[in-house]
Amino acid sequence: MQKKTYSAQLLQYIPFFYVIWSDDLVTASEINVVQNALKKDPSLSKEQKDQLLGWLDPERPPKAAEMKNWKQTISSSRVKLVESVNFPLAIFSQRLTAHYYHEHPFNEHLKQIEIHLGIQPNHYKHLFDVEVAHNPNSDYYSAREIDTLLKGKHAKLIDGFRATLNDPIFEWDIHRDKEDFREVVLDQVKFLARRDYGALAYPEAYGGTYDMEGYAHMFENLMYVDGSLTIKFGVQFGLFGGSIQKLGTKKHHDKYLNEAGKAELLGCFAMTETGHGSNVRGIRTTATYDPATDSIVIHTPGKNDNKEYIGNALHSKMASVFAQLIVNGKNQGVHAILVPLRNEAHELLPGITVEDNGYKLGLNGVDNGKIWFDQVAVPRENLLNNYGDIDKEGNYHSHIKNPNKRFFTMLGTLVGGRICVARAGLGGAKFALGVAVKHALRRRQFNDSIKIQEDLLMDYPSHQLRLTPLVASAYVYHFTLDKMMELYCDEGQPDKRVVETQVAGLKSIITWYANQSIQECREACGGKGYLLENRIADLKGDVDIFTTFEGDNTVLLLLAAKGVLSDFKAEFNSAGFTSVLKILGMQLNDTLTTINPVYTNKVDKEHLYNPKFHKHAFNYRTKRLTYTLAMRIRNYIKQGMPSYQAFLKVQTHLLALGKAYSVELAYNTFTDYVGQMPEGKYRNLFEKLGTLYALHEIRKDAEWFLEQGYLGGNKSKAIRQRVERLCTELRPHIEVLVDGFGIPEHCMSAPIAR
Amino acid sequence: MQKKTYSAQLLQYIPFFYVIWSDDLVTASEINVVQNALKKDPSLSKEQKDQLLGWLDPERPPKAAEMKNWKQTISSSRVKLVESVNFPLAIFSQRLTAHYYHEHPFNEHLKQIEIHLGIQPNHYKHLFDVEVAHNPNSDYYSAREIDTLLKGKHAKLIDGFRATLNDPIFEWDIHRDKEDFREVVLDQVKFLARRDYGALAYPEAYGGTYDMEGYAHMFENLMYVDGSLTIKFGVQFGLFGGSIQKLGTKKHHDKYLNEAGKAELLGCFAMTETGHGSNVRGIRTTATYDPATDSIVIHTPGKNDNKEYIGNALHSKMASVFAQLIVNGKNQGVHAILVPLRNEAHELLPGITVEDNGYKLGLNGVDNGKIWFDQVAVPRENLLNNYGDIDKEGNYHSHIKNPNKRFFTMLGTLVGGRICVARAGLGGAKFALGVAVKHALRRRQFNDSIKIQEDLLMDYPSHQLRLTPLVASAYVYHFTLDKMMELYCDEGQPDKRVVETQVAGLKSIITWYANQSIQECREACGGKGYLLENRIADLKGDVDIFTTFEGDNTVLLLLAAKGVLSDFKAEFNSAGFTSVLKILGMQLNDTLTTINPVYTNKVDKEHLYNPKFHKHAFNYRTKRLTYTLAMRIRNYIKQGMPSYQAFLKVQTHLLALGKAYSVELAYNTFTDYVGQMPEGKYRNLFEKLGTLYALHEIRKDAEWFLEQGYLGGNKSKAIRQRVERLCTELRPHIEVLVDGFGIPEHCMSAPIAR
Repeated sequence: MQKKTYSAQLLQYIPFFYVIWSDDLVTASEINVVQNALKKDPSLSKEQKDQLLGWLDPERPPKAAEMKNWKQTISSSRVKLVESVNFPLAIFSQRLTAHYYHEHPFNEHLKQIEIHLGIQPNHYKHLFDVEVAHNPNSDYYSAREIDTLLKGKHAKLIDGFRATLNDPIFEWDIHRDKEDFREVVLDQVKFLARRDYGALAYPEAYGGTYDMEGYAHMFENLMYVDGSLTIKFGVQFGLFGGSIQKLGTKKHHDKYLNEAGKAELLGCFAMTETGHGSNVRGIRTTATYDPATDSIVIHTPGKNDNKEYIGNALHSKMASVFAQLIVNGKNQGVHAILVPLRNEAHELLPGITVEDNGYKLGLNGVDNGKIWFDQVAVPRENLLNNYGDIDKEGNYHSHIKNPNKRFFTMLGTLVGGRICVARAGLGGAKFALGVAVKHALRRRQFNDSIKIQEDLLMDYPSHQLRLTPLVASAYVYHFTLDKMMELYCDEGQPDKRVVETQVAGLKSIITWYANQSIQECREACGGKGYLLENRIADLKGDVDIFTTFEGDNTVLLLLAAKGVLSDFKAEFNSAGFTSVLKILGMQLNDTLTTINPVYTNKVDKEHLYNPKFHKHAFNYRTKRLTYTLAMRIRNYIKQGMPSYQAFLKVQTHLLALGKAYSVELAYNTFTDYVGQMPEGKYRNLFEKLGTLYALHEIRKDAEWFLEQGYLGGNKSKAIRQRVERLCTELRPHIEVLVDGFGIPEHCMSAPIAR
Repeated sequence: MQKKTYSAQLLQYIPFFYVIWSDDLVTASEINVVQNALKKDPSLSKEQKDQLLGWLDPERPPKAAEMKNWKQTISSSRVKLVESVNFPLAIFSQRLTAHYYHEHPFNEHLKQIEIHLGIQPNHYKHLFDVEVAHNPNSDYYSAREIDTLLKGKHAKLIDGFRATLNDPIFEWDIHRDKEDFREVVLDQVKFLARRDYGALAYPEAYGGTYDMEGYAHMFENLMYVDGSLTIKFGVQFGLFGGSIQKLGTKKHHDKYLNEAGKAELLGCFAMTETGHGSNVRGIRTTATYDPATDSIVIHTPGKNDNKEYIGNALHSKMASVFAQLIVNGKNQGVHAILVPLRNEAHELLPGITVEDNGYKLGLNGVDNGKIWFDQVAVPRENLLNNYGDIDKEGNYHSHIKNPNKRFFTMLGTLVGGRICVARAGLGGAKFALGVAVKHALRRRQFNDSIKIQEDLLMDYPSHQLRLTPLVASAYVYHFTLDKMMELYCDEGQPDKRVVETQVAGLKSIITWYANQSIQECREACGGKGYLLENRIADLKGDVDIFTTFEGDNTVLLLLAAKGVLSDFKAEFNSAGFTSVLKILGMQLNDTLTTINPVYTNKVDKEHLYNPKFHKHAFNYRTKRLTYTLAMRIRNYIKQGMPSYQAFLKVQTHLLALGKAYSVELAYNTFTDYVGQMPEGKYRNLFEKLGTLYALHEIRKDAEWFLEQGYLGGNKSKAIRQRVERLCTELRPHIEVLVDGFGIPEHCMSAPIAR
């Protein structure tokens, strides 16, 4: 075929047309954009317009020979594509027709097309056989500014804390021996306590600033040092100290809180029992009030009723022991009692047995142990009596009469810990993503071309697809957890049932997300990711258990689902279903409208990128799952099935609802945050991250949406393509995005990330 | 409502009707079965038949009040349900109407319904408020007989090997220090070598039985002892010894193979380089023939060209070094050369540097290291010269003229190792599933009922759903890998390209499956799964890297997809795409017929359980993905895109094809195996396992099938319900199924599994 030449007027459009048709994503709205630009372009003659419009007809796309000719024209021009300029394709076109533009003004219409189609060099640079002057990373965004957004109002605290982590005591090292490792971690905890970080969430009278929100941020940052340090820190100050703060009263605060916050009194939180992992109400340890001695006797009745996996058990002098409180022969339900474990010489006190849990998959710097009590008597004053007390006459009192409500109110004060676990998981994911992305921007992988160097790993579409949605999710979860902690701490809202339920669901999906991310990062780094020195391996072992502790994820999702079912009116955490059923019985109607077929097949970019679509999809899923679930349960009950069995039969349905609700909540919380950002490039970036999160989540559950007829096959495919494309669009910014997490340089010790 | 009473004739059917209507799965074919039984039952009057048939009308299902009455009738009878009899529901019915049956013969029609509907106690026992005399495990199948089927022709070898593993040297223990751990593992390897297990796959002249298939089974069983032992064993005998056996000739065999098999000569396999993980052809180490000294000089040119992650590097006396062989200034491609590393005193020889890779996420009993060569000369005879040789005159010869073909033929001889890695992954999954299932059959979880004891974990639907499909998959992959090794060893088939490609795909999906299974088991065991003593934690760390070594899974899937695309005519392992393109260019037509709407909505059990449906679905997926992929690539090429870029653009599509093909292959291989089993209960059991695997896999990719219009929404939902139901049906047999893996009692050391 003879090479056809084009007039300058046509030629300027050819790179655009070539990109448009080479792409898999020519949509009606995109064609429209180009048509409009063409029609308005005064530089084109009528004939030229017709010619160009003819090349835009989706019914009769340009022939392969035509496109090949375009390509040859472009290649033979020897014009260089400069990736880092503002409008690379328009500038490229301009230079292609330099002889023409020399005499004519720059064609603004090309720029308009470039903007409106969101065309980015990553979409097309591989299409051109031209030299690309490129920089693997764009500096359009600043990591520092992103970090500032993420720190929000806690910037000062976090900056100070990160600087503190630069002390040599926090230098990462391998500790294989658990005794040695535990000593290192204990020293780190004491170091932080001396600098007042342990007491941060306590009232000012006890060395703190009452800053639970800041505490959660700090907790996430601790993961950049080490998982064991994070958990040990949380046990000492959050669980042990927190139980004194929340469940105790002034006498306990005055006596213990200062020392606890300074890590001078080490303590543990003895709730879980071997036989009763997730069923706190069913624990068997007893705390029997003995009027004769005015003391409370703590006792482990059976062989499997010992306290289990108690962090800090080997180092502690004292424990907050959760036990069935029996006063005058009556069980008043679970209460916490402070029980001294060891004397000044660190010898166990009489009646107390502690056994090391031994080596674990991770967190070997935390001293987990089992504890047995054999008729251990402590003074009546040791009862943490904020929600229930025994008076001098030996009578039990509580301002919460309903024992169920009392129990869940007590537990509810500890929900902050659940947010912190999710935050720590998120910190682990961010760190692993930081390592994997930086590695992928340094490591080159083989390709088949002899003339060009091996590609960066990060330039492979499959690599972009495996890491980018995870990075976007980290942003969504970051702001979601911020908001949850704010709500949890809001003293204007004393009824915490809604936030407790929401945290139950979010803790599950975020810790699972964290584990999946870390695993993906391990594999994305190949053999290098397997070496301890590169830090991902430890994170894998450490974060793994986050799915289990502070509430097993499956159990938490069931709670969340029950909350949604009962419109958050059911007693939180209640294993009983009656309150849910009561509400279900009241009224049920399917308020969901049938989905319009035009909607189920709408595939244009404007629609797919619109948060309204994402919110509608998530809301539809939650509502539909709630309705069908309620109908199923009601039918079972009508048939006479015991409510417990009915709930068992719908267990997988409940889990689906719990997840669906949590994803919806996270997305809505994130878009609320973005909605109040000032207009500008960072808001645009965050919107894009939100869109990627939403489309990725819809993709993950596409089968459900397809089954329901909510998505048509083409729309589902279009979403997949959009996810891939968004990953490519974010490729130049991926390093800035992980740097935006603000992981301190001195913590990022992985050799492959340097 | 007044309680209605029923005649004995009606009453006998009521438990069946209650079960049928309480279930979510009343299908037309099930109703048909009951209708037929009713019509043929001579004990019923016309009126009674009409009454019963009326209760079967799906258009007008029995009212809730009616069903409640049935339930009360059943409950108030105080008849006990005996789960362990052969026809529990029919017997229950019989006892319910004892006054009637006292005078009448047992109604065979009830038995027929029970058989044809496949009703099992797990479906209905929770529906009855009656005492259930139950046994958590059925003894209908024997674990020993299942194990015998799994061992197949290798029973004698495996039994002997398992007995050997009972030696105290293999007792599981925690080894935190890598030096200590490595010594333990080395002693274990030597112990096995002394008993001739190391040389098993070598010819008889060198101490073996030439039994590669048996070797693979043994390899899987090694995982029950320890992952590090498995890998160290594989490096010494499979990789180092295997390279001498396969790439060397008689002179090498005579000189080294006996000693290698006895672990008297320890060696390593030095292929991978830091800079070139997955690109063996691109390795940079050189082996330059020097005619002056008649020697080959091994050299590491650059800082990142060292050998990396070389197992056994610290203990080895010798290495099989892969390097670019340069003879008379010409690069003849990658060859292997035996290079002594250390002297008798275990000191490194001049020019050789070895560095410990340090601690890893797992496999710390394996001494991985980096190796550098600085102009190390070895005799010409050290070239492993089966596929290419240098003669006395210093000229290079090979009977395979095409250097690409030569390279891939050499690599192909090592594919057995890839099957072994998949087998080891499978062994890890089996072990973890054994622990998790046994734990779930011992551990009770809280429920809401006061009168009944806490449920076994294994009785929760979500728990069944998370573990049972994984158990079924283990069976499918077991027989698939058996077959692959048989094909690989079949000397009647010298062209191994097909099996090499198939193994590439299977290794990927099976090692990913293994990791997912182990993770699921860890979470299913809660905190207990996190303790090293319960063995799952080590498996997690050890098996993790199986997705990366012996070929990164992503790279292998791309190879598999390329094989499928080119109908296995492309050069295996070739990074070049030209051969694929040549074939694609030849002819392409979409032979897939449009799917009939009746088919896409067929939800009856007979259809969903029919292997024809599963095969059709898998085949449709592979074909459709192949066709659309080929079309996309062809279009890109037509538009002038370089082939390398075209393949990059379709990377995620290639991965999907690689997975789809591998799943289809595994299922077909398994059904072929089952097809030749004698009729009987084990064949029925295996058919059920195959069905669960198939439906579970279709579910996992349901979004794709829905997008294509291959599945309708209702069919997709029906498949989900069938998966849940199959898990419930297999519940009584779950312990036998994991015991059927044949994990020796002495290896199953996890306290939670005892």
